[in-house]
Amino acid sequence: MKSIILAIVSVLLTQFPALAQEHPSILLTRNDVKALRAGVTQYPLLRQSYKSILRAADKAIQMEIAVPQPTGEGGSVAHERHKRNYLDMQMCGIVYQISGEKKYAEHVKKLLLKYAEVYNSWPRHPNRKIEPGGKMFWQNLNDCVWMVYTVQGYDCIYDYLTPPERQKIERELFEPVVKELSEVNTKIFNQIHNHGTWSVAAVGMAGYVCGRKDWVEKALKGSALDGKGGFLAQLDQLFSPDGYYAEGPYYQRYAILPFILFARAIHRYQPELNIYGYRDGLLKKAVDILLQMTYTNKVFFPFNDALKDKTYESEELVYAVNIAYSDMEAGDDLLDIAGKQGRVIVSDAGLKVARAIAEGKTKPFRYRSLWIRDGAQGDEGGIGVLRNGPNENQACLVFKAASQGMGHGHFDRLNILFFDNNVEVFSDYGSARFLNIETKSGGRYTRENDTWAKQTIAHNTLVVDGRSHFNANLKKASATAPKLLQFESNDDYQVVSAIEEYAVPDVRLERSTILFHPEKNAPSLLIDVFRAKSDKPHRYELPFWYQGHLVYNSFPLSVNTNALKALGADFGYQHVWLNATGNPGNGNATLTVLNNKRFYSTTFLSDSTMKVQLVTSGAGDPNFNIRSEKAFILLKENVDSYSFLSITEPHGSADPVTEATAGASPQVKGIKMLEDSDYRISFEFRYKNVRYTVEINHQDKKTTITKNQ
Amino acid sequence: MKSIILAIVSVLLTQFPALAQEHPSILLTRNDVKALRAGVTQYPLLRQSYKSILRAADKAIQMEIAVPQPTGEGGSVAHERHKRNYLDMQMCGIVYQISGEKKYAEHVKKLLLKYAEVYNSWPRHPNRKIEPGGKMFWQNLNDCVWMVYTVQGYDCIYDYLTPPERQKIERELFEPVVKELSEVNTKIFNQIHNHGTWSVAAVGMAGYVCGRKDWVEKALKGSALDGKGGFLAQLDQLFSPDGYYAEGPYYQRYAILPFILFARAIHRYQPELNIYGYRDGLLKKAVDILLQMTYTNKVFFPFNDALKDKTYESEELVYAVNIAYSDMEAGDDLLDIAGKQGRVIVSDAGLKVARAIAEGKTKPFRYRSLWIRDGAQGDEGGIGVLRNGPNENQACLVFKAASQGMGHGHFDRLNILFFDNNVEVFSDYGSARFLNIETKSGGRYTRENDTWAKQTIAHNTLVVDGRSHFNANLKKASATAPKLLQFESNDDYQVVSAIEEYAVPDVRLERSTILFHPEKNAPSLLIDVFRAKSDKPHRYELPFWYQGHLVYNSFPLSVNTNALKALGADFGYQHVWLNATGNPGNGNATLTVLNNKRFYSTTFLSDSTMKVQLVTSGAGDPNFNIRSEKAFILLKENVDSYSFLSITEPHGSADPVTEATAGASPQVKGIKMLEDSDYRISFEFRYKNVRYTVEINHQDKKTTITKNQ
Repeated sequence: MKSIILAIVSVLLTQFPALAQEHPSILLTRNDVKALRAGVTQYPLLRQSYKSILRAADKAIQMEIAVPQPTGEGGSVAHERHKRNYLDMQMCGIVYQISGEKKYAEHVKKLLLKYAEVYNSWPRHPNRKIEPGGKMFWQNLNDCVWMVYTVQGYDCIYDYLTPPERQKIERELFEPVVKELSEVNTKIFNQIHNHGTWSVAAVGMAGYVCGRKDWVEKALKGSALDGKGGFLAQLDQLFSPDGYYAEGPYYQRYAILPFILFARAIHRYQPELNIYGYRDGLLKKAVDILLQMTYTNKVFFPFNDALKDKTYESEELVYAVNIAYSDMEAGDDLLDIAGKQGRVIVSDAGLKVARAIAEGKTKPFRYRSLWIRDGAQGDEGGIGVLRNGPNENQACLVFKAASQGMGHGHFDRLNILFFDNNVEVFSDYGSARFLNIETKSGGRYTRENDTWAKQTIAHNTLVVDGRSHFNANLKKASATAPKLLQFESNDDYQVVSAIEEYAVPDVRLERSTILFHPEKNAPSLLIDVFRAKSDKPHRYELPFWYQGHLVYNSFPLSVNTNALKALGADFGYQHVWLNATGNPGNGNATLTVLNNKRFYSTTFLSDSTMKVQLVTSGAGDPNFNIRSEKAFILLKENVDSYSFLSITEPHGSADPVTEATAGASPQVKGIKMLEDSDYRISFEFRYKNVRYTVEINHQDKKTTITKNQ
Repeated sequence: MKSIILAIVSVLLTQFPALAQEHPSILLTRNDVKALRAGVTQYPLLRQSYKSILRAADKAIQMEIAVPQPTGEGGSVAHERHKRNYLDMQMCGIVYQISGEKKYAEHVKKLLLKYAEVYNSWPRHPNRKIEPGGKMFWQNLNDCVWMVYTVQGYDCIYDYLTPPERQKIERELFEPVVKELSEVNTKIFNQIHNHGTWSVAAVGMAGYVCGRKDWVEKALKGSALDGKGGFLAQLDQLFSPDGYYAEGPYYQRYAILPFILFARAIHRYQPELNIYGYRDGLLKKAVDILLQMTYTNKVFFPFNDALKDKTYESEELVYAVNIAYSDMEAGDDLLDIAGKQGRVIVSDAGLKVARAIAEGKTKPFRYRSLWIRDGAQGDEGGIGVLRNGPNENQACLVFKAASQGMGHGHFDRLNILFFDNNVEVFSDYGSARFLNIETKSGGRYTRENDTWAKQTIAHNTLVVDGRSHFNANLKKASATAPKLLQFESNDDYQVVSAIEEYAVPDVRLERSTILFHPEKNAPSLLIDVFRAKSDKPHRYELPFWYQGHLVYNSFPLSVNTNALKALGADFGYQHVWLNATGNPGNGNATLTVLNNKRFYSTTFLSDSTMKVQLVTSGAGDPNFNIRSEKAFILLKENVDSYSFLSITEPHGSADPVTEATAGASPQVKGIKMLEDSDYRISFEFRYKNVRYTVEINHQDKKTTITKNQ
């Protein structure tokens, strides 16, 4: 009896102030609901967003309650059913709040009670890949996501439930799930990693909703409450001071949702923690930087492990943009993004966004040229983003000089990506993965993600002696980062320059790229200087993976027409077919590609021993997991040091509908190296018959481009 | 003196009635101009169309008059300049009529006088490929196009010119050009071919505008006035009674413009000829059939020589749709197309279209399932088009059982193309050509158009013994056509079936395809039966060129991972890399492809000796003229007769943005042949656990699909 009383007291003591015990309280609050009910009839974007979840909720409540025994991987029936269920619970909860119709609450209740009934009878997931693994899904991560959504649904129907129902759900479902996340999978829970964030968000949000301060504290400070793990440590260590997330944009997108949702819950329940102000407004910066790492086609820069068709239309970014706009004063240009997302979250944040758009406050999204620092302290390299032109026709160069990015990082120091005219010009392969396609390695990363997608040759950066950077050793690669030499952005050009000293033994890699605008309202030139410095002879290969179709080569190519062979045996070379080789000879050489109705000519400095290889990805691929992509590779063999110098020029147009072609001839000519010393590179070229001299000076950290009359 | 008088009398006698001597009189008429001036301010589509040509005209009048000495091929400076000039003359003429501003007329005048000054000093074109070839352009065809546009510009500024100016232009420019077209290139002029149509339209339209009845008569009846050539003979012989043009949709699109323009001129000047009523309203049918040969992504079915990105947004179709709507009562569903074209011609026809759209008369375009007869008499095979579903999500099967289609025809008897979900599923390569890309064979068809694109293996039809149909002999192929066996379209399915008896010696080819809709609002199944009948053993290969990425094979594949070889040495096989082979064994086998977020599973009847080859196009291609495309080939060796039986099933979805996958498993199972006799094919299969029996009966010309309980 005494112990029972003590237990009750202890529960009471760990609860939050009265305010916080109102439900709902996370995305929706009781106060918001009235305004929201009016808003869904007033503001088009909110109206259609509500209609869309209403449709889904109506579909959901007509389905049988199905809580199948867990089995199978991504894409399998049980997996997709449990995913569906958590989305349904969240949506039906919201619709219940807006419409007041009990049938929606009833559906959530039934699902929750069914889960409560069966959850504890399930063994560990039969398809788990590592121990302990997930319970409801093959990996613990999905169990966490399930909780993040489910607890929102529970929050919305809390008042609809009887106390015994709540008790059953909290005791027989949420408590065991929290235990599963924070104790059984304690390693993940305490990890400084996006899986850890999903886990602490799940436990922390459940803690707020269920009034369990102990769960919240664990979520904030780690399971040992020592601050070594948990949300705050993740905020400290996973982001750079600029808001860059170490794994890169694809995972920053994925991680932003639990960060934003949990932060929102903290903001609601414990405003005194000032979580939005944490680390000088880090979360707002993180949302901004994430959007700055998209191109005008909405797609995230696909470096590191990334699905290439992932856009800012994804769910996570709808939450992030809405909450950043509503809670963090992120500026009216965010409304441009929200408009293009085409929906808002049905919550007070979404209401604010939809209202502002309806009031005509939208401004074009302000894409910027910037250097984004990586590393918790901002001292582990970074990402250079160079942009020019209006949002409708923007040139964008991405320069990757960041740290490795943990297990999802690729071995691609000083890699570049080039976008123009709303498409990829020089592209990154992204990851080798067919997400949720069960027939493709269970929807997980395929073997070729390691053997191909991560290897250096799959990227637009220098490969030395046919080996990947750091010999593709994650631990070694994680120990160091490249260093910024210069970054500048002005009206005439943007420049970013960095060195990498550790990726290749004995070789110092240095790259400088310039986005140069010789004329107003005309395409920008991409000037690229890649220098390799060494005392010993090496084989240097600089690939340019391009999109489009090769339409011109200024030098003869010897083409393999009857038989193809793989380019090598390891470090990704086993996945590359060699189509052709050429010797451009002394002087300048040009390759022209036609891509999305525009020409792209790369003119490069050549010499008597330079070779060019044309290649296609897809060799060594017994399961057809690799897309067929094309590259030209500039190749120098047996040289100590070498500087690759090229200028890529977008030009002209070829319209198949009107059958009009214009400006098909490249205008860059006469590239000549003037000086190539340790701290100074100087060269000249002609463009439309005007001579320009470029000097990149690393001592003064300055680049000048002079127009010669 | 006497001869001068006689000449004058003769000119007077050959002129048209007073009415016709008004200018302008073709696309614009003096009467229209007032309504049009009001219309360009009233109706959005006309307003923006006018704005767009106004912008172009304003740009044009600011340019120097440049009439360069002819040289170079498609895409070259002089070629593109002369193209620009004729477009500018037409546009400035129209803008002069609408705006009344003389600067536009002045620009046309200057260009015309400049042409008149230099035209007769030019030699034959230096880049001509055949004799006599063109004069202004490398081929005579472009000279004809030049005249068709230029004479419209002249018509618009006729009244602005002084009589001596007119005389100079007509005597020193148009007369020599007409002579060039109708006498120097008399063979083309009299040809029953789209080049001939451009030529007679040029001469005929010039005849009307210049009041030269002799030119008109030649244009209508051929240069000998015997009716063996000329416009009427072309209308008689180039179109089938259904309005199908023998070369296929790509060239029907190209040819439709001179047909429609010249017809419009005839209609204006000689209404008594009732040209719109000719051959039972042939021209209206031709426009309709042309649109029926597009898919919902706007693209023309790309069979025969065709650029794959050609859509009905092209100039020719804007003219055709506008004039068909305004002059031929073609129906309000044409406004759907006009709306999607996004512009109208600035003329009374465009005015009618823009007004009707502004008045809300648009109806969704009525895509139909139909059998389109080929051959002047309608007895040379045809094109089957099977469709199902709403315009937003339509399944469409194209069955090519037409005649050869002259020099632009491909050797692909009984070829099929399958579209679904707004994309290609089983695709046609189209032509191997980079139109107007001068670095690519001067923008002409590349060598690979003959060696690859035209060959049978490049298509989704049966190749026997590794040789193309008719051994790729155009003359032999042109002598015969396939024959229709059945065509039917009802609520549950569409079916088309045809035989080809001459393409392969000793082998009779017979194909039946069915688009079957087992459920409402669900994807259609494509059922395909390809029968080869012979008394002697043969090698049969049935390729399916697919778009998308292979994600599942139900049987093991032996993959060439280190080296690829070309599949053969001739008939297009030299252009195909062999990636993998497999032996599916007895029973059913399945290949699944993911394409535009939807799965496509082809399940086929297999046996112990069936082989499957996975291939990629692009071998034997020293100039990189071939796109990389993928196919699976069903292969039977050393059999007399064989029936390939497959069912292709669109299913499920995989959305990378929401990361939701559904319906990833194919539902077609248990395909079993029940009877395979001369006039009857009967088989069963299960779909979603329901058993269906299909009977294709050629004696009764009837197909039945029975649902078995």
